Amino acid sequence: MAKLSLRHAEQSPLFTFECPMRVYYEDTDAGGVVYHAQFVKYLERARTEWLRHLGFTNSDLERKHGLVFIVSELHVEYLKPALLDDALNVTVGIESVGRVRIVFAQEVRRDHDLLVKARVVVASVAANGFKPVALPPELEKKMEAMC
Amino acid sequence: MAKLSLRHAEQSPLFTFECPMRVYYEDTDAGGVVYHAQFVKYLERARTEWLRHLGFTNSDLERKHGLVFIVSELHVEYLKPALLDDALNVTVGIESVGRVRIVFAQEVRRDHDLLVKARVVVASVAANGFKPVALPPELEKKMEAMC
Amino acid sequence: MAKLSLRHAEQSPLFTFECPMRVYYEDTDAGGVVYHAQFVKYLERARTEWLRHLGFTNSDLERKHGLVFIVSELHVEYLKPALLDDALNVTVGIESVGRVRIVFAQEVRRDHDLLVKARVVVASVAANGFKPVALPPELEKKMEAMC
Amino acid sequence: MAKLSLRHAEQSPLFTFECPMRVYYEDTDAGGVVYHAQFVKYLERARTEWLRHLGFTNSDLERKHGLVFIVSELHVEYLKPALLDDALNVTVGIESVGRVRIVFAQEVRRDHDLLVKARVVVASVAANGFKPVALPPELEKKMEAMC
Repeated sequence: MAKLSLRHAEQSPLFTFECPMRVYYEDTDAGGVVYHAQFVKYLERARTEWLRHLGFTNSDLERKHGLVFIVSELHVEYLKPALLDDALNVTVGIESVGRVRIVFAQEVRRDHDLLVKARVVVASVAANGFKPVALPPELEKKMEAMC
Repeated sequence: MAKLSLRHAEQSPLFTFECPMRVYYEDTDAGGVVYHAQFVKYLERARTEWLRHLGFTNSDLERKHGLVFIVSELHVEYLKPALLDDALNVTVGIESVGRVRIVFAQEVRRDHDLLVKARVVVASVAANGFKPVALPPELEKKMEAMC
Repeated sequence: MAKLSLRHAEQSPLFTFECPMRVYYEDTDAGGVVYHAQFVKYLERARTEWLRHLGFTNSDLERKHGLVFIVSELHVEYLKPALLDDALNVTVGIESVGRVRIVFAQEVRRDHDLLVKARVVVASVAANGFKPVALPPELEKKMEAMC
Repeated sequence: MAKLSLRHAEQSPLFTFECPMRVYYEDTDAGGVVYHAQFVKYLERARTEWLRHLGFTNSDLERKHGLVFIVSELHVEYLKPALLDDALNVTVGIESVGRVRIVFAQEVRRDHDLLVKARVVVASVAANGFKPVALPPELEKKMEAMC
């Protein structure tokens, strides 16, 4: 699994999408900070909004193309905690786009503070049976333009 | 909506099923206690284990009978907080069983302390389209024996 | 527990606050719809945004006043399901404001469709020990103006 | 971030702890499978039960030693989906134990099927301020015996 590493995350991708997010009680734990698994949800919310920004939704991709995205690998580094009521920004950058596999570089920031950085590998599979399936060409093209 | 009230919850149903549950970090919030929506999940876990105890599972009911249970109404009273690492017991009692509608009386306890009491109305509907559908007779019979 | 009922929910409170919310994968379950406990989180997110709209935050109330809000009672009626990618609106209305106890009337809508209605009783307690504690007068006044 | 890799995960640690887990509706998403962030919670539940098995709890460690564990890094590979009602086993193995830093190798299995493998780096920090703090010697010794 050399395929996923965070070592180059300092070189930000050229284009990134940014999604604001607010921290609610539901996101925190008894340690007084955002629960670590919650950031994994934040990362997906941001990817979903970025997809919507490109003109696509998960529900349409399933309905029209029988396609769903699954996370196949996840690498998250937690640098600083986030707190109740924090206003966060979650970024979406693309490392690479293959026919069925997209590697995202994402970050969670509070103002200029980098809290979390992540690399997430997503695969496009058939909703029915989960076999790998090629991205719709128009979506692939839009993604490649972001690399 | 007079149909759901907690006023008789002191009279426990004759038969109750009890399900142990442990409090993890994921269940707590920055207030240091179990997050209120988390108890709603605990209640369903206990109903699911009770169903399994009767010889049924949600996945089988859907596969064999095209039936899913949905929560149509929920009334929860929070009396005392639960804390990280607490060992809880969640009970399942039945108030009434109709052809498509079951009223559960449930409680969450830590030893003899009553933390939460709830009434939950569940309906059996078609997995495809969510129209009300009668319970499988064998399941209805087993449930009625518990009232 | 006659204190909480949904029977008058048709008469909307005079002033309501509205909070937009998007449905993500994390909110749904294998039934293909938003998981019932998730709406309980949506309701709190909306109350939190309404509080922020009034000029207060949960973290400030705790830091400055040693006060936290706890949910003491919850009554939710699920009328129609919400789906992946739905754009929802969650409303916050106030039924009554006491010195330590607020009764909220809330709804979840998708366009003109009413999906969920709820009454939620919230109490203000000391962060340290959870004893009831009076609302800060400026907050109580702002809330009463909404009844 | 060469420090965390899954490449040697085939060599299982000598001693592993195993924790059974059941899949409930709350764990699944509209794709019909367990939501990817949910596995991150499963992993922590298992580490918590393993800690309890060693004679320690998170709440005691905080109360007696002012110590909390935080996840500082997470690397998860998703190999096969888990489904509603699945009975899973989550393992806890230890790769290395430092004075403040523990590297866990964990897996989620359904019978002999490997569904998820993960490496999780946990640090022990002061509950108050989150500065690194040494593990209690008795806990460190018990952990080292597992490497």
